[in-house]
Amino acid sequence: MSSIDKVLARIDADLDNSLDRLFELLKIKSISTDPEFKAPCQEAAEWLEKELNDIGIEASVRDTEGHPMVVGHRKSGKPGPHVLFYGHYDVQPVDPLNLWNRDPFDPAIETKEDGTKIIVARGAADDKGQLMTFVEAARAFIAETGDLPVDVSILFEGEEESGSPSLHPFLEANKDELSCDMALVCDTGQWDAETPAISVMLRGMVGDEIIVKAASRDLHSGSYGGSAQNPNHIVANIIAGLHDENGKITLPGFYDDVIDMPAEVTAMWDKLGFDVEAFLGEVGLKHPRGENDRTPLEHLWTRPTCEVNGMWGGYQGAGTKTVIPAEAHAKFTFRLVGDQDPDKIQEAFRAYVRSKIPADCSVEFLSKDGSPALRLDFAMPVLEKGKKALKDEWGKDAALTGMGGSIPIVGDFKRMLGMDSLLIGFGLEDDQIHSPNEKYNLKSFHKGIRSWVRVLDELAKD
Amino acid sequence: MSSIDKVLARIDADLDNSLDRLFELLKIKSISTDPEFKAPCQEAAEWLEKELNDIGIEASVRDTEGHPMVVGHRKSGKPGPHVLFYGHYDVQPVDPLNLWNRDPFDPAIETKEDGTKIIVARGAADDKGQLMTFVEAARAFIAETGDLPVDVSILFEGEEESGSPSLHPFLEANKDELSCDMALVCDTGQWDAETPAISVMLRGMVGDEIIVKAASRDLHSGSYGGSAQNPNHIVANIIAGLHDENGKITLPGFYDDVIDMPAEVTAMWDKLGFDVEAFLGEVGLKHPRGENDRTPLEHLWTRPTCEVNGMWGGYQGAGTKTVIPAEAHAKFTFRLVGDQDPDKIQEAFRAYVRSKIPADCSVEFLSKDGSPALRLDFAMPVLEKGKKALKDEWGKDAALTGMGGSIPIVGDFKRMLGMDSLLIGFGLEDDQIHSPNEKYNLKSFHKGIRSWVRVLDELAKD
Repeated sequence: MSSIDKVLARIDADLDNSLDRLFELLKIKSISTDPEFKAPCQEAAEWLEKELNDIGIEASVRDTEGHPMVVGHRKSGKPGPHVLFYGHYDVQPVDPLNLWNRDPFDPAIETKEDGTKIIVARGAADDKGQLMTFVEAARAFIAETGDLPVDVSILFEGEEESGSPSLHPFLEANKDELSCDMALVCDTGQWDAETPAISVMLRGMVGDEIIVKAASRDLHSGSYGGSAQNPNHIVANIIAGLHDENGKITLPGFYDDVIDMPAEVTAMWDKLGFDVEAFLGEVGLKHPRGENDRTPLEHLWTRPTCEVNGMWGGYQGAGTKTVIPAEAHAKFTFRLVGDQDPDKIQEAFRAYVRSKIPADCSVEFLSKDGSPALRLDFAMPVLEKGKKALKDEWGKDAALTGMGGSIPIVGDFKRMLGMDSLLIGFGLEDDQIHSPNEKYNLKSFHKGIRSWVRVLDELAKD
Repeated sequence: MSSIDKVLARIDADLDNSLDRLFELLKIKSISTDPEFKAPCQEAAEWLEKELNDIGIEASVRDTEGHPMVVGHRKSGKPGPHVLFYGHYDVQPVDPLNLWNRDPFDPAIETKEDGTKIIVARGAADDKGQLMTFVEAARAFIAETGDLPVDVSILFEGEEESGSPSLHPFLEANKDELSCDMALVCDTGQWDAETPAISVMLRGMVGDEIIVKAASRDLHSGSYGGSAQNPNHIVANIIAGLHDENGKITLPGFYDDVIDMPAEVTAMWDKLGFDVEAFLGEVGLKHPRGENDRTPLEHLWTRPTCEVNGMWGGYQGAGTKTVIPAEAHAKFTFRLVGDQDPDKIQEAFRAYVRSKIPADCSVEFLSKDGSPALRLDFAMPVLEKGKKALKDEWGKDAALTGMGGSIPIVGDFKRMLGMDSLLIGFGLEDDQIHSPNEKYNLKSFHKGIRSWVRVLDELAKD
């Protein structure tokens, strides 16, 4: 047996223990966006610090203004590239809790009707399960061979789901320590359950939250209806005016910096045979919305979008309350592509919102940071190594894909630390990340660990 | 001293005790719309039953499918009209609780900067303070003269703020017991702090609540944004399309049965000198919204309106959650005037909503009962008696007004029991009913009690 085969055999034999460790991490309620869960975020960071030190990666919890970072190193000046592995230990909120089939922080292995085994818990896929694939790969490598094949640094953050407010200052303050030859980022998905993928194109994002206010207090709709401004109506007007009848976003100049893909790229993607029916059918839908001259794969990878993630105003309880609320709220996110500038988009959005605010009303904006879209170089040499490693493990060519969601860290690594990122992940479309009943396939976890062993092995080669 | 002067003097001397009794009632958390407060609603009914029996009105708590009624009688076949006094002991919910300056169920007398004394509590004006004006008037009359000048029956309900689901069956089942010569209803306001009013025109109301659903679960906006329907956008489109740029409601046929007022009525109202600036200024506004060819007094009394009292969908917590919610909600109420038919308006609304539901979305309606508008006969003889009584107490002619809010009971009394209603109340525009920091002027309470003494005395005259 070659040394890599021994490492892989150890992983197979140790899988139950790997799962026990993952479950320990999944039980920690590290919801970063809600201040109530500050202590569990700290606890998750400390748990990871201990795990890394236990397997031979010297790690420490590093305080920030928000939730802490975990930084680890195992390096001895090996000839191959020094890689920085990135993941995040924080998770999304769990509401609406009543739609979960079990306690989101009580992980379990379940078997679906088709026999697929899945790990069910908040964070199973996003991103605790994913980051543990790398930790377990490193553990097996060191246990079996006494070392890692390349120098490895680790960065786990705890604010990915809440806009990463501490990340820029932390990267800036620790530039020398964290700058490596390249980054490995495990927060993405496969093409499908059988086909691995490397993401080479990431949309950016910019968000905003508005509070529209009118009267100085809630009003009785029998007395003031018709005469007083109703913030619910104003917010609804703002939302309704953001798209035209063809699904285009109406902000002036919004599409100016969108870049159309070269024909060879779209041709490659056409071959992937994206199954629109399955993509929408999995969530109970049939008819693609959106720009009606574009395909859902374009909506997902190469087109900008605007979504209202939350809106509220007035009475939400049981029964009727005849009230005109003093204020109403909405949360917006724009996905960005090509050269769209988050600041410019936010300015256009705010100008538009202000233009829809009538006399007697005011608007307040709750600022959100944005990040532009990114495209990696298709000719980047490590892409080939990644593709070979994944093909060896999965027996199929990796798809080179775009990505719908944002991973701002990739842009930060590029701009602040001068590093390209290899984005390899094992999530699947039906993992229900950010939703009730999040899961991660047991196969994703198992073969994910094995995939990282092969990637590290490939990277060490000349 | 005439007997009526003695009754009035007793009221003045007993005011502190009257307030103590009112405070006992205000402390009971009888929120009818929320099932959690079922027990306090029962408690309020039993408290009123005891009060009425104590003062010599034979009363009992009468069970319904929902919150109980309190019915009382004191009658001996007097020659004057037999009157039924109506009020409601239930109150509106108190949220948002953080905007209250004190516990809404811990009543207190406060003194405003201008020296006005006010009773602050949920229900102080709507309707516990108002109904207690009549109870205290009856108490003083019986205590001082040994009897009431006319036969009196009482009906207090506990579901006025939650659509009165038990009222129709109760009136139907107790038609003989409750049918009197006329009703006295105390749930309305004065023209201003110095000018009493009798309401002769009431708007109707019909409401509806919608739930718009799309995907079978919450979605990640990075994955499904642009492609999947977002119920927040659909609900916003529905709300935004309900009014045109001139503030007119767009439902087909909506204005068909609206009746314009005769010129003599509007001329009378013009003399009232409605102060738009003060009306809006009191709540921090300046610019009348609504149909831009109508005055705010028309919006309030003679024009139909449509207001969204609540809307919600998606994430409302702190920070960002990149979600497309599976569903979104909105609560609507329409104020009706003239001959507008609640059922017809609801049908037009539902047809409109359905026309805005795209493929892949569905809508569910949560049914709400409606009531048509009412106009009393300006030549009704008891109107003159009411006007004389009020002028004697307040030294000013009573204004004959319309009313913005709905009082469905008046229509029920007319249609089910064949009774006209004399609507006399002592609320003021700035009472903040249905809002935080609800209050009732001490003067309204005191002179309200005295006014009922004079009204009962007038009604007993030939």
